Amino acid sequence: MRVDGRAYRSIWLDPDGWSVQIIDQSRLPHRFDIVRLTSAAEAAEAIAGMQVRGAPLIGATAAYGLALGLRERPDDGGLAASIARLRATRPTAVNLQWALERVRRVVQDLPAGERAAAAYLEAEFIAREDVEQNRAIGEHGLTLIREMAERRNGAPVRVLTHCNAGWLATVDVGTATAPLYLAHDQGIPLHVWVGETRPRNQGGALTAWELGHEGIPHTVIVDNAGGHVMQRGEVDLCIVGTDRTTAAGDVANKIGTYLKALAAHDLGIPFYVASPSSSIDWTLGSGAHIPIEERAAREVSHLSGATASGDLATVQVTAPGSPVGNPAFDVTPARLITGLITERGVAPATLAGLAGLFPEMAGPLPGEAGKAPSVSVPE
Amino acid sequence: MRVDGRAYRSIWLDPDGWSVQIIDQSRLPHRFDIVRLTSAAEAAEAIAGMQVRGAPLIGATAAYGLALGLRERPDDGGLAASIARLRATRPTAVNLQWALERVRRVVQDLPAGERAAAAYLEAEFIAREDVEQNRAIGEHGLTLIREMAERRNGAPVRVLTHCNAGWLATVDVGTATAPLYLAHDQGIPLHVWVGETRPRNQGGALTAWELGHEGIPHTVIVDNAGGHVMQRGEVDLCIVGTDRTTAAGDVANKIGTYLKALAAHDLGIPFYVASPSSSIDWTLGSGAHIPIEERAAREVSHLSGATASGDLATVQVTAPGSPVGNPAFDVTPARLITGLITERGVAPATLAGLAGLFPEMAGPLPGEAGKAPSVSVPE
Repeated sequence: MRVDGRAYRSIWLDPDGWSVQIIDQSRLPHRFDIVRLTSAAEAAEAIAGMQVRGAPLIGATAAYGLALGLRERPDDGGLAASIARLRATRPTAVNLQWALERVRRVVQDLPAGERAAAAYLEAEFIAREDVEQNRAIGEHGLTLIREMAERRNGAPVRVLTHCNAGWLATVDVGTATAPLYLAHDQGIPLHVWVGETRPRNQGGALTAWELGHEGIPHTVIVDNAGGHVMQRGEVDLCIVGTDRTTAAGDVANKIGTYLKALAAHDLGIPFYVASPSSSIDWTLGSGAHIPIEERAAREVSHLSGATASGDLATVQVTAPGSPVGNPAFDVTPARLITGLITERGVAPATLAGLAGLFPEMAGPLPGEAGKAPSVSVPE
Repeated sequence: MRVDGRAYRSIWLDPDGWSVQIIDQSRLPHRFDIVRLTSAAEAAEAIAGMQVRGAPLIGATAAYGLALGLRERPDDGGLAASIARLRATRPTAVNLQWALERVRRVVQDLPAGERAAAAYLEAEFIAREDVEQNRAIGEHGLTLIREMAERRNGAPVRVLTHCNAGWLATVDVGTATAPLYLAHDQGIPLHVWVGETRPRNQGGALTAWELGHEGIPHTVIVDNAGGHVMQRGEVDLCIVGTDRTTAAGDVANKIGTYLKALAAHDLGIPFYVASPSSSIDWTLGSGAHIPIEERAAREVSHLSGATASGDLATVQVTAPGSPVGNPAFDVTPARLITGLITERGVAPATLAGLAGLFPEMAGPLPGEAGKAPSVSVPE
């Protein structure tokens, strides 16, 4: 998508043919810095330090990172070491393991000398497939927005989103934002409520930055205000992303998603989750089994931003000495979700709904394709 | 309550006998500064600029501010001007108007020369009544905590709160915190989840600071995490404050309260609102009629805190140029509230419940003492 009018992806191969370029998202929206990755270790650091974030982009970065690792050390030991190093960075994102497994399958039976080249190719396939997948999600979500636009009779369709499931979280286009970018391109008037998404403010910093560069009207609100704007009747639908969707339709996404879903449900507002098949964990029934990453207290106690003079600075905002907790995700139960927008269409948030669209991926259906606690998917 | 072991109120008369001392809460938790107010204008600025905040303290400050105003200009014109200036500071807090009206009634029939002295006396009565009221709320809330402590069998009672309805928000003791301080004094083990309460972080900055100085174990979390800690089964009850409670039991409180109440309701966790009678607006049925203050965008886009060197600094955290919305309150419907903890006991959040405790204040009961939309209280 566009930055100051010029098209970018969030990750791309350097013209040197081997190093990998990323946007340092930890410095956005105040600095637009491009960083060059030259090893698996640097790729792992970029993931762990959230220079790259978002499940699909984490997957693509891990795949490129494994290619970089195989360039350094292509033997079986090197392959295993690079995978272990990259896998340890973020425990919740299923795309990370999915992407590493996919590259491993491609390279493991090749002679050591051919592995790096094959890994680069597979990483680029993963990146391109992500973009295609997101465009398909955009098309299916566009149908929902177009229906709402007809009901709104020319007035802007008002969408609430949370965190950043935008193009920065993927390789391009985004998942939750894909329907917005397509609708905007087609001239459908939009207004997007952007929850800032503490602790790391990916909404107020990244999603707002994306929407601003694309010219889509939006308003940043604190996470606490999401329920109130829905109460005021100023939200037509919610679209969020997912870090991991269970086979039964429970969604682990950025902390706070559950609260927005509760408000939408309470007020009868449709709540959709843009859920590419790569984020579906077919081995999990209930979301209660999803491991939730506890991140550093400093993300809550301290906040970075730009001073009046334009420098970046970090300030402590909590009471000195107060203990801090920082769970990074919560689980939104399937019963609160209107639909999962996948690359193959919009599915009800049930095992039957997902299996209907992805029969080749779904495990055997239990008798009742029910909600989380009653589903017994093999783990 | 205690600051570094020494007892304070949040507002008190200076030993000079006429000027008024407050704690500058806009600089907490990083600076503990005491500010001297010498005019109605300074009192109005302290309220508008949130050096003092919290409905009961706003009321007490307005009363003292009116006394300061009458000291300057005790005639009818001066009385009206001071009231108008003080009333314009915060539209949502009902205590502001209640306190000003109460002082007006005391002074309006007095000769000009006696008005200021009578206003000071009434302001001090208001302050002392607030403390007594809060202790009574504490006693009734303590019963709820003691019951939970018995069920917890010696393990800490885990309470979630939002914003600061602590002693800093009142004259002393606090409303939502009063049961906690009493329980802690009696040796009941507690753990308090403190939501940071963006945009102004009154939870992470003020409530956590209060609890720290009283030695009560607590953990600060971002507002987004409130639902998750409840999902994890780590919250036994929620206690929050209120800026305005309608006669039917709807509660306007700091933005985000509605979301926490939804999660508590979804998970079967008791949700109590510490609601002194001074915060009850007997003229309002539905919370939908409560005016919601829209505050400055800068509260969302910028954040202040302490740098590593200990200086206070302000940083911009949103994407430059992104529009910002900042509604300061939301309305939690009575149906989500387990009970209102008043100074006369715990009432169901219904007109009948409140009228049972405050028969002399309640208007005529409609046939069905029902929930918000069906109540037709005269406005």
